[in-house]
Amino acid sequence: MAKNLPAQELSHLQDAYQRIRGETLGLADGLSDADATAQSMPDASPAKWHLAHTSWFFETFILAPHIPGYDLFHEAYNFLFNSYYEAVGARHPRPQRGLLTRPSLDEVKAYRLHVDEAIMAISAESFTGQMGALLELGLHHEQQHQELLLTDILHLFAQNPLKPAWRNPVPLEVIDEDTSSAPVWQEFPGGVLTVGHTGNEFAFDCEGPAHDCVVRPFALAPRAVTNAEWLGFMQDGGYENPKLWLADGWDVVQRQGWQAPLYWQRADDGWAQMTLRGLQPVHMQAPVSHISYYEADAYATWAGARLPTEQEWEQASLTVEVTGNFAGAERFRPRPQTGPGLTGMFGDVWEWTQSPFTAYPGFRVSDGAMGEYNGKFMSGQMVLRGGSCVTPEGHIRPTYRNFFHPDKRWQFSGLRLARDC
Amino acid sequence: MAKNLPAQELSHLQDAYQRIRGETLGLADGLSDADATAQSMPDASPAKWHLAHTSWFFETFILAPHIPGYDLFHEAYNFLFNSYYEAVGARHPRPQRGLLTRPSLDEVKAYRLHVDEAIMAISAESFTGQMGALLELGLHHEQQHQELLLTDILHLFAQNPLKPAWRNPVPLEVIDEDTSSAPVWQEFPGGVLTVGHTGNEFAFDCEGPAHDCVVRPFALAPRAVTNAEWLGFMQDGGYENPKLWLADGWDVVQRQGWQAPLYWQRADDGWAQMTLRGLQPVHMQAPVSHISYYEADAYATWAGARLPTEQEWEQASLTVEVTGNFAGAERFRPRPQTGPGLTGMFGDVWEWTQSPFTAYPGFRVSDGAMGEYNGKFMSGQMVLRGGSCVTPEGHIRPTYRNFFHPDKRWQFSGLRLARDC
Amino acid sequence: MAKNLPAQELSHLQDAYQRIRGETLGLADGLSDADATAQSMPDASPAKWHLAHTSWFFETFILAPHIPGYDLFHEAYNFLFNSYYEAVGARHPRPQRGLLTRPSLDEVKAYRLHVDEAIMAISAESFTGQMGALLELGLHHEQQHQELLLTDILHLFAQNPLKPAWRNPVPLEVIDEDTSSAPVWQEFPGGVLTVGHTGNEFAFDCEGPAHDCVVRPFALAPRAVTNAEWLGFMQDGGYENPKLWLADGWDVVQRQGWQAPLYWQRADDGWAQMTLRGLQPVHMQAPVSHISYYEADAYATWAGARLPTEQEWEQASLTVEVTGNFAGAERFRPRPQTGPGLTGMFGDVWEWTQSPFTAYPGFRVSDGAMGEYNGKFMSGQMVLRGGSCVTPEGHIRPTYRNFFHPDKRWQFSGLRLARDC
Amino acid sequence: MAKNLPAQELSHLQDAYQRIRGETLGLADGLSDADATAQSMPDASPAKWHLAHTSWFFETFILAPHIPGYDLFHEAYNFLFNSYYEAVGARHPRPQRGLLTRPSLDEVKAYRLHVDEAIMAISAESFTGQMGALLELGLHHEQQHQELLLTDILHLFAQNPLKPAWRNPVPLEVIDEDTSSAPVWQEFPGGVLTVGHTGNEFAFDCEGPAHDCVVRPFALAPRAVTNAEWLGFMQDGGYENPKLWLADGWDVVQRQGWQAPLYWQRADDGWAQMTLRGLQPVHMQAPVSHISYYEADAYATWAGARLPTEQEWEQASLTVEVTGNFAGAERFRPRPQTGPGLTGMFGDVWEWTQSPFTAYPGFRVSDGAMGEYNGKFMSGQMVLRGGSCVTPEGHIRPTYRNFFHPDKRWQFSGLRLARDC
Repeated sequence: MAKNLPAQELSHLQDAYQRIRGETLGLADGLSDADATAQSMPDASPAKWHLAHTSWFFETFILAPHIPGYDLFHEAYNFLFNSYYEAVGARHPRPQRGLLTRPSLDEVKAYRLHVDEAIMAISAESFTGQMGALLELGLHHEQQHQELLLTDILHLFAQNPLKPAWRNPVPLEVIDEDTSSAPVWQEFPGGVLTVGHTGNEFAFDCEGPAHDCVVRPFALAPRAVTNAEWLGFMQDGGYENPKLWLADGWDVVQRQGWQAPLYWQRADDGWAQMTLRGLQPVHMQAPVSHISYYEADAYATWAGARLPTEQEWEQASLTVEVTGNFAGAERFRPRPQTGPGLTGMFGDVWEWTQSPFTAYPGFRVSDGAMGEYNGKFMSGQMVLRGGSCVTPEGHIRPTYRNFFHPDKRWQFSGLRLARDC
Repeated sequence: MAKNLPAQELSHLQDAYQRIRGETLGLADGLSDADATAQSMPDASPAKWHLAHTSWFFETFILAPHIPGYDLFHEAYNFLFNSYYEAVGARHPRPQRGLLTRPSLDEVKAYRLHVDEAIMAISAESFTGQMGALLELGLHHEQQHQELLLTDILHLFAQNPLKPAWRNPVPLEVIDEDTSSAPVWQEFPGGVLTVGHTGNEFAFDCEGPAHDCVVRPFALAPRAVTNAEWLGFMQDGGYENPKLWLADGWDVVQRQGWQAPLYWQRADDGWAQMTLRGLQPVHMQAPVSHISYYEADAYATWAGARLPTEQEWEQASLTVEVTGNFAGAERFRPRPQTGPGLTGMFGDVWEWTQSPFTAYPGFRVSDGAMGEYNGKFMSGQMVLRGGSCVTPEGHIRPTYRNFFHPDKRWQFSGLRLARDC
Repeated sequence: MAKNLPAQELSHLQDAYQRIRGETLGLADGLSDADATAQSMPDASPAKWHLAHTSWFFETFILAPHIPGYDLFHEAYNFLFNSYYEAVGARHPRPQRGLLTRPSLDEVKAYRLHVDEAIMAISAESFTGQMGALLELGLHHEQQHQELLLTDILHLFAQNPLKPAWRNPVPLEVIDEDTSSAPVWQEFPGGVLTVGHTGNEFAFDCEGPAHDCVVRPFALAPRAVTNAEWLGFMQDGGYENPKLWLADGWDVVQRQGWQAPLYWQRADDGWAQMTLRGLQPVHMQAPVSHISYYEADAYATWAGARLPTEQEWEQASLTVEVTGNFAGAERFRPRPQTGPGLTGMFGDVWEWTQSPFTAYPGFRVSDGAMGEYNGKFMSGQMVLRGGSCVTPEGHIRPTYRNFFHPDKRWQFSGLRLARDC
Repeated sequence: MAKNLPAQELSHLQDAYQRIRGETLGLADGLSDADATAQSMPDASPAKWHLAHTSWFFETFILAPHIPGYDLFHEAYNFLFNSYYEAVGARHPRPQRGLLTRPSLDEVKAYRLHVDEAIMAISAESFTGQMGALLELGLHHEQQHQELLLTDILHLFAQNPLKPAWRNPVPLEVIDEDTSSAPVWQEFPGGVLTVGHTGNEFAFDCEGPAHDCVVRPFALAPRAVTNAEWLGFMQDGGYENPKLWLADGWDVVQRQGWQAPLYWQRADDGWAQMTLRGLQPVHMQAPVSHISYYEADAYATWAGARLPTEQEWEQASLTVEVTGNFAGAERFRPRPQTGPGLTGMFGDVWEWTQSPFTAYPGFRVSDGAMGEYNGKFMSGQMVLRGGSCVTPEGHIRPTYRNFFHPDKRWQFSGLRLARDC
């Protein structure tokens, strides 16, 4: 993760800092102080908290330890805006983040400015070695929170009977697709393959070390499962048939009364779905989103297929370009995936794999607070791959491992089927 | 409750309307949109909700049914701002009030203005009969929510590690008291007494019918139990000794880990207490506040006394004037009670009685939605009497019955001892 | 409660001891070791626990302190079989009573024998003064647990899909009633009445002191509400209409999904009901049983009446004899109440009153462990009067106050309507 | 799993049936009806239930479908004793198994006899093909429940303050060990290895298909971590240091207040531990047992090592014989592991691996009810290997995969350290 940057990249880092920090702020446009304060469930955080916590990261790991004479913006912020870094000290209880009506959104913006000015005042040359690596990590960290800010706002607004839209409703393209031939599954030969991150580009610690593993021949569906296909599962009694479900999943289905993806609700003429653009009709050609791992697995069982492993997914992803429907496109919704060959691997929806999030062989946790970045979450979570329609452009790569507990549904999470050859 | 008003009072009603509605708005001064939106526990409501709900009351029970052509401000508000009137239809779940970041505080203020203009546009003569009675009820209802708005804001701010003050901190008077003689308990003869509201003034339905009951001779402490006295209870192990407690109370003590009144926390030099004026040292001469019925009862047992019945309290209260430390004094904290005779019966803190909140003999629930006002709560709650330092001036009277479940502590609730003669 | 017994009563006490202790043992006939060990909910206790706890009472309060050289049967039993006497020391957590597979039922019976022999070995003369009073209290305590043993076994067996019968099924009388005239409500004049226990007979502490209170003229239904009448309430949507319910009650209805009395289940030809004689058709002429206070109150509201106060009930009960369908009749089910005048006041079902269980004026808790007998429960519970079909003969009296929380349904609890004159 | 058996093995199967069924019954020796009925937590089942459910398996999958004219012992037993086979119909809720005081232990034994006689009456030739495979599966299933019966009884007895012993206490050997040299870690070369079951012997579905995978060179500790070593972890603050723990694990530590392995309690002279032979001093040389995956992982982190993967464990286990301290030795406690080389791989304690329980490549769920055997649990659980001191002799093998959720502690679960070479 940490590495020495060549000289010509040093100023690029501060350019990237300005750009990415500005993008985060842009996401808060149109949010009121109250919008930015509320927390709709313990899994989610207030937008204000995301704005502050990402600044806290730079302040705590770069400014305070490395810049002599740096003035903390506010003493209490270390307590308020630490997320889970036990090494850094006590922190405010997560489920009560929504009660922090103070500091206000404006104060948090002032905090951001204070940190930004201090970072920009550092000479570019300082960002060699560890400080550069920390700045780069901080930016990728910031991008992760950009996506979380959006999924958390969506969850909050979905609880409001007024169904407010974060961005103006715009129609989503409907595709006149050639349905004369079924989509062709793509086959991959497998073998002893290298999995995990290599090279000099940035990657999170959990993406390495690169290592060999045996992958058997497999086939992948050319696109993600669509809303229309998901409706077929529902209409066939998918949510009522325990034999399709993992035991833990069936428990959740019954306890929470799941009958459709999160955010779906019945409408006069079918199904509607809460989105970042307000309540919208479910777009039948678009990939299904906001489903849990348990649902993805049950669907795959119903379809006579399975979910891919993360190694399979990674191998397949190397055959396509890292392009797709990301946040930069400002759709903020998955779009229909069409065209020949393997499509939609990046963007639209994160794709659940059947792989638990575990350490790659040889993985070592870093020393210090950075050691808490990913390693401590290697239990009970499942890997998702490929990014989504709210992932920032440039943040994703084939080796990128996202992870959530198998019952979570508030991310833009979907699925793609796989099978043995 | 409902009654015909004499002609000369009609314009008074609209005057009162303007004054009381304005006072409510004044309480929101200094609250941000976020402050007014957050909900710190299911028992509490957001300030914005109080502002809207009290307006909804006038809109729903006066404007919509009685004013031809009245335009609802917003169709969804009936769903959002109904509190518990089952007769009026479905309503937003109480524990999720804090997720309503929209409508904003400004929109809610606009809603208030819309309702106020409509009410003021009605001719004074219309407020005879039922409409007058409903307006009067709405104003008393509004005053109840004024107090709740303050206790709910206090609870919210108490959760914030920054301990924000709703109003500027000001010192509270310290009294040089003549401690050469102990306070003299006041004796009352009892007898067959009339209890409950009589006369033409407004009273809530549960304050009547007036009826006779037998009260035996009793004595009342001349003032409420102070923080200093409460500290004595604590230091004597009051919170650790199950024999002092009601069985249900002891369960709560253990489950919630009570060791002091709500809002008390240890400070360098003793105890501090969160108040509407921020975190302040506990004022030892002032009445203890923010205790539950269970705590009040345990204290009385420890002190070899008991709590008064509401009938006893009412008889005693008739011997003093209805004056005291109310919200109008803008202390927003209990002040020390001194002087000869029975003091502090009104204002400072609500005093727990040993009487469960039940129907007086002959009590009948009204027809329609107004029937849900008090009767449905006549189970599991205890009566408090006398008003507090955040009760609006003029809202209280000797027959006034407040009520809360015996484990609640976020109101300004204290106690006064009684004993048999 | 405690009093000196005249000489001729002394041997009667030991006779009563033998009789009542034998009756308790008889209730366990037919129970297996497992039946006697299981605990079906935290509110209930295992039969074995009742058998042991009642013995523990005599051992702890009579034998150990008063009989020199008495050998405790087992050191650990004080911990295992103390119910709630904080003064006597730590105790086994109530919800885990069902995990005490050891000691076995046989060992518990041996414990009973050990205690019985020690009690019978005491000379009759010793039972003057406090020891006599404690023995008498112990016997009334034993009778209370006789009833609880039966209600707890019923609850346990009701959970078993095999629906075992504690006693052989026998048909319950069906009455050919003269239905040509409606039952006549009985009127009572009220006045300033003495309420509570007087005289030398035994009574629990909470039945006194006797005191005056004002009762207004009222009328009582001549019999308890029947299953047929209850079915009318159900068919009229009683369980679906929030306006009939107390707020706390409606919460419970929704949370627990109540749709009928406890133990009712739909059968091919109507409704069946689990009883101590197995699953039986609901007997439409018999009093409804196993309803909560909340249900009783909702029914009364639906019927345009109310529940009686305990003072009203007591006054009325003094006009009839203390006879009825008790445990001695070995029906173990409520029977139809017929005949002229006020009937069924004693036996069949405990009748919920609208009175919270509170201290009578002048009530003082006793010193020592006996002080924990009733006083600590004077919060949150409602008074029931009159005994039931599983109350031991001779245990009930007009002043007897039973009490349970308003959501409890596993006792033989029903209702009788009242109204103002 | 299912296969055709050669002719000479057919009678062996029925011999095995008689032996294994008899062993199960032997485990119930000394259990009272109550012991066999109680359920100490939802994860555990009553002994009686294990005895009945294993018989239900043979009745449901062999006798009822394949033996014409077979009489079900009791119609309701399919409902009562189905564990989790959704395909077979509704079933009694798991957390309420402890309320089934009927049928009695004797009736359940009669049920076993009924089933046993029917199985033995079948001609040996019938056990070719599917019926033979089902019988064999039923026996391995029975052995699994033998182990569970013991761990569940231990959990039940541990809740009883009397700390009853299931079998007589006997001293456990103390070893005079040559401590002059530290145990030597064993190195393994790794490579592309075949993992999973091959050959004709019985194995569960989840043990296959055999498949290649890449294993890197690694070293294994020669024996399991001991109680003495675990005490070192505790004394070094292991349970108080969040940096050692997985995030989910730290949550559980705090919520449940873990400070030592399950069943440990402080004793006058150190630590005692509840065992199947009653409360015993913790044997410091013996392997630690009754720890969760979270604890095992935290210990490994503290020790600067890691847990092995299941592939590593399997490779290493192939270098030693499948012998050890199993249930047949009747110690029912882990014994100290000594001697040169790799020791204690089988028996004593199940060893947590770092591998989540997932499907091997190519795994397919069987059709019908048997398909619910293992596949539906492939989510959220971790693999343990090697068997324990309560695993039946002959039940374990190198490829055997046991699995539990990472917070479970009531099995005989311990750990062995691994590290990269």
